[in-house]
Amino acid sequence: MSEICPTSLAPGSTIGILGGGQLGRMLALSALKLGFHIHIFCPQENSPAFEVARKYWQADFDDMTALDEFALSCDVITFEFENIPDSALERVSRHTPVFPDKKALQVSQDRLHEKAFLTSLGIPVAPFMKIESILDLALAMERLGDDCLLKTRRLGYDGKGQFAVQENSDPKTLWKQLNDQPAILEKKVDFIREISVLVVRSQAELVHYDVCENLHLDQMLRRTRVPAAIPEYIQTRANDIADQITVALDYTGVLAIEMFMMKEEDDDLSLLVNEIAPRVHNSGHWTECACITSQFDNHIRAIANWPLGSTRRHSDIVMTNIIGEDALNWQSLAADTDTSLHLYGKEDPRPGRKMGHTTLVLPLKDIMTPKN
Amino acid sequence: MSEICPTSLAPGSTIGILGGGQLGRMLALSALKLGFHIHIFCPQENSPAFEVARKYWQADFDDMTALDEFALSCDVITFEFENIPDSALERVSRHTPVFPDKKALQVSQDRLHEKAFLTSLGIPVAPFMKIESILDLALAMERLGDDCLLKTRRLGYDGKGQFAVQENSDPKTLWKQLNDQPAILEKKVDFIREISVLVVRSQAELVHYDVCENLHLDQMLRRTRVPAAIPEYIQTRANDIADQITVALDYTGVLAIEMFMMKEEDDDLSLLVNEIAPRVHNSGHWTECACITSQFDNHIRAIANWPLGSTRRHSDIVMTNIIGEDALNWQSLAADTDTSLHLYGKEDPRPGRKMGHTTLVLPLKDIMTPKN
Repeated sequence: MSEICPTSLAPGSTIGILGGGQLGRMLALSALKLGFHIHIFCPQENSPAFEVARKYWQADFDDMTALDEFALSCDVITFEFENIPDSALERVSRHTPVFPDKKALQVSQDRLHEKAFLTSLGIPVAPFMKIESILDLALAMERLGDDCLLKTRRLGYDGKGQFAVQENSDPKTLWKQLNDQPAILEKKVDFIREISVLVVRSQAELVHYDVCENLHLDQMLRRTRVPAAIPEYIQTRANDIADQITVALDYTGVLAIEMFMMKEEDDDLSLLVNEIAPRVHNSGHWTECACITSQFDNHIRAIANWPLGSTRRHSDIVMTNIIGEDALNWQSLAADTDTSLHLYGKEDPRPGRKMGHTTLVLPLKDIMTPKN
Repeated sequence: MSEICPTSLAPGSTIGILGGGQLGRMLALSALKLGFHIHIFCPQENSPAFEVARKYWQADFDDMTALDEFALSCDVITFEFENIPDSALERVSRHTPVFPDKKALQVSQDRLHEKAFLTSLGIPVAPFMKIESILDLALAMERLGDDCLLKTRRLGYDGKGQFAVQENSDPKTLWKQLNDQPAILEKKVDFIREISVLVVRSQAELVHYDVCENLHLDQMLRRTRVPAAIPEYIQTRANDIADQITVALDYTGVLAIEMFMMKEEDDDLSLLVNEIAPRVHNSGHWTECACITSQFDNHIRAIANWPLGSTRRHSDIVMTNIIGEDALNWQSLAADTDTSLHLYGKEDPRPGRKMGHTTLVLPLKDIMTPKN
């Protein structure tokens, strides 16, 4: 029984979400379950979250009239992806409180700011250099050696805006691909596990979900399993790093931190932070099936200033994304009746598009080793 | 891995629901999660399910134009309560398949038909007599003795249309209360447990959820706990009775059967059926928190002719209804962070109105004894 906060948002209030993809849709479903109304703002036609909103604005993020109208209709506003323009966020926050605070967005929108922020906290990141010219790039390639990733500073997710740099890569060609966007060159890290930590923070509390172990294929999350196959001291360290970041950002809501676990020369294990996502996260979708309170419920609780729900995990899980044309096999997905199926209502199964996910729910300590 | 059925309804299809209360809303949330669109038909303004529908018709069940339009927009139709007029069901079924079949509705809409149906299957029910006149009533009161319930044959649920009959009750007063509606007089049963069985049946399969133990207060479900405190042979018998009913109705979807467990004179335990509900049921709300596939998911799977999902229960639960002004205590409800909270988005907390429910989720075999 947590403390009751007198300034909590009452059921029947309206929560606005900037962005209308599957994360917005899942947030909306949780908000509805807690008795809130949902308003969505999203530029794309047929956005998955429109269908579960009481009202939605299909308008661009530079449409100030629409932003004003949307903001005035909401009691609190949140967002479902980190690439909301600053100007849009600033505009809606004139009328209505926005959580999480824009600081988290500003840090995570720009890979250079993100690295600088993490470094300032003493948190290890992969070696990187700032790239603003072809000269910077040539120099960085020399310094960092081959096997690097060239990443645009902004608008990168699911492998977008990333280019592999090998021994024989030509700086000129790479620079052209960048198309004048500022970037960073980052050394590829020889990790043995990819993990993520999901933290939820409200004005009064901070809680974690169990650490997730992730498998990426083609730079997209393919599979998450919990528990992660990592020792307890690494879990503790991962949580400590996550707490440090969350507190430094004075964060409200769910924050996801992706980390790499590496084996040092002396066989010790170490962690570095790959990136942070100031929102609910694909690697936390399993919480819907294996926890009393899902990441979506808890994000809503946090921004509504409610006590946070229990993050206790009652089952082991393997979550698998359904990507692109995988969704056409819906009959096999529907027939795998030991998994919980979640489809996002998207019509066009474009390559690389996240269409849904399945969660295999297993008794605790009965986790299966993924085959692919 | 169940068999794949070639005639299954594809995600992106539209499921219509007759009725827009909380059961319709919860069905809609499950259908959305499986990638379907939802259309709702309901006479009441501000029905809870309207908010989660792509389209809704707020129209009376005798509005044939609206029924036609609704039916033509859907690929399959189901209902969330049993008091849909026959004529409305007949009308929509001209255009679109309706599941479950109207036979279940006809049986469960009329307490006399229900008793006759159960008796014809050899399933025990409480002693009862048909009441069509004040003379019938006086005679029945003499035959069945005091401590009976006078129940209208139609439109009864949550204690509506029920009148207690005591030793000193006056047939004339009771007959007036009935207001000329045909009724039955039913002997009150001295049970030691109230239980319910939730069956799901599709064209190819039949599965059960674990037997629920229910506590009613003021003739409304107040609390459900699972596992039920009943011996295994009673669970088996309860499931057998449920199967028999489900098959006899050639049923598709979730069917709930409420039963009483009694102690016989020789200390043996026996069961009788109290009533059947041809729909998802309040005593199955816990399945959302404690099973891989909820009753709502499985009802949608059944009517979409999908393989049925696993009904394995991974946790013990105590589900408690939030009724009427209980909902005003939302801050305490929100602060009970070991429970999963579900509010139905209803604005007016009228006495006796179901506003939401909480589910306390506990490790298996850790069930708490309810205190009230």
